[in-house]
Amino acid sequence: MQSKEMFDLKVYLSEKKAIVDKALQSCFPKPGGPASDLIRAMEYSLFAGGKRLRPILCIAGTRAVGGTEEDVLPVACALEMIHTYSLIHDDLPVMDDDDLRRGKATNHKVFGEAVAVLAGDGLLTEAFRLMTSHKLTQRISPRVILKVIGLIAHASGYQGMVGGQVVDIISERKKVDFPTLDYIHTHKTGAMISASVTSGAMLGGGTPSEVEAITSFGKNIGLAFQISDDILDIEGDTNTMGKEAGSDEQKGKATYPAVVGVKKSGEIQSELVDAAISSLQFFDQSAEPLRRIAQYIIERKK
Amino acid sequence: MQSKEMFDLKVYLSEKKAIVDKALQSCFPKPGGPASDLIRAMEYSLFAGGKRLRPILCIAGTRAVGGTEEDVLPVACALEMIHTYSLIHDDLPVMDDDDLRRGKATNHKVFGEAVAVLAGDGLLTEAFRLMTSHKLTQRISPRVILKVIGLIAHASGYQGMVGGQVVDIISERKKVDFPTLDYIHTHKTGAMISASVTSGAMLGGGTPSEVEAITSFGKNIGLAFQISDDILDIEGDTNTMGKEAGSDEQKGKATYPAVVGVKKSGEIQSELVDAAISSLQFFDQSAEPLRRIAQYIIERKK
Repeated sequence: MQSKEMFDLKVYLSEKKAIVDKALQSCFPKPGGPASDLIRAMEYSLFAGGKRLRPILCIAGTRAVGGTEEDVLPVACALEMIHTYSLIHDDLPVMDDDDLRRGKATNHKVFGEAVAVLAGDGLLTEAFRLMTSHKLTQRISPRVILKVIGLIAHASGYQGMVGGQVVDIISERKKVDFPTLDYIHTHKTGAMISASVTSGAMLGGGTPSEVEAITSFGKNIGLAFQISDDILDIEGDTNTMGKEAGSDEQKGKATYPAVVGVKKSGEIQSELVDAAISSLQFFDQSAEPLRRIAQYIIERKK
Repeated sequence: MQSKEMFDLKVYLSEKKAIVDKALQSCFPKPGGPASDLIRAMEYSLFAGGKRLRPILCIAGTRAVGGTEEDVLPVACALEMIHTYSLIHDDLPVMDDDDLRRGKATNHKVFGEAVAVLAGDGLLTEAFRLMTSHKLTQRISPRVILKVIGLIAHASGYQGMVGGQVVDIISERKKVDFPTLDYIHTHKTGAMISASVTSGAMLGGGTPSEVEAITSFGKNIGLAFQISDDILDIEGDTNTMGKEAGSDEQKGKATYPAVVGVKKSGEIQSELVDAAISSLQFFDQSAEPLRRIAQYIIERKK
């Protein structure tokens, strides 16, 4: 572990991303046989330039409580598969209708809508299969794994991400009040970001109070991350982001800047990041990656 | 348990269906709050007149090895949720484009395509959450539950149902050889039917050889069931089936009758049912429901 003075977030993120990418690459067989198109479509989006934020949060969460990244890699990969499936379905013409994601053509643009729907379904299902695999069960107690699967299913399902996505879609081009906006953001993005870091802490054997502190951290940065997405959509550059800037406003999306203004959104975001870092006050240097990731959320450009 | 002479399949199916329906009814909160539309959409398809074949197979599978239905109900409900999600996504305009399912308007016809995609996603995810719930973990060993989740995820994912569905879609209006047809049927329908009965046997504490025999039973009836679906699509009555007869041919679907003819399809189906029943030769009366369900597959009209 690098010391506080030495800790270089850029190096940390790039190292962990490489580890996650390698683990993801071993998740699927070489395309072959009748369902090759499906495997190609799943892998296309899985390797379309994601930052691996959720897997890295899972790894950083486990490190904070003294766990090791080898113990959480299958769950880290599962989190990225769930995130990727949600992007594929979000981009569909019947949903957000996006042609571009991270600077590349979206899944349905390359493979057609039917295969894109099924590639999403396949990634979501494989995420759950992966969390029952021998790689994980040989290292972690089955009871803890079941709790983690339950946590992630809750965070990604109708009471979490999918719920937030429905409200996001039905709120388009409507005047949205603050509680609805808050519901969309905490559910659509916040729940899975929070579950990512919490699952890491649970798998690493964190005590109940450690897991609680890390969950509080996750909830705060989850919302802060979505607000920064909203702000970037206004202030960001299409080339840097790899998707069209200003598309939220075009679609009449309920965003923090649209409801409370850009300035106030920035203030709320800063408060959330401060609260997130405060949650970690009883952690030592082992939580430094989490603290630095929280700060990075405000500074990021894409 | 009814004795062999007394066993009335119709009564059995109707009793078990009522138990499954009641368990499913307690799965979701009353619609309320921002995501009400999503809950309504999920429940609409979940209660649109399904036969509950997969849950009943799970219950019958556990009974065959001496287990009790209370022990498997959460998994039985999860199987029905996964089946229902697959129907919602299959019916989408970009997939099979069906307006009618079990005599009712399909999900996207009622709730729109975006909500239908998300209702499917929500049901699939909730199925996995349900299998980690206290209702199940208080009764069954976590290690067995993890195996069952892995089995069901494998059967419903890219190496199972979703894989079969992709090949089904990309094979439309193409000349399909027998191996491809077999791949579609064993994956699209067979895998989940087989997993339903096997998961019941695993949860009921079946020995490895019992589980193996029941898996063999499941594979045979899974394929037989899909062939009977294909035959019904030709010979069935639109009113009785609740969906349009002849739609497979219209869509240029790869079906057994289309590839090997109706007569040969019926012969293969009978052989499969015989093989399924033979798999159960070392089971006593406790496997009678499974034997009778196998025969029913040939006789059913919808």
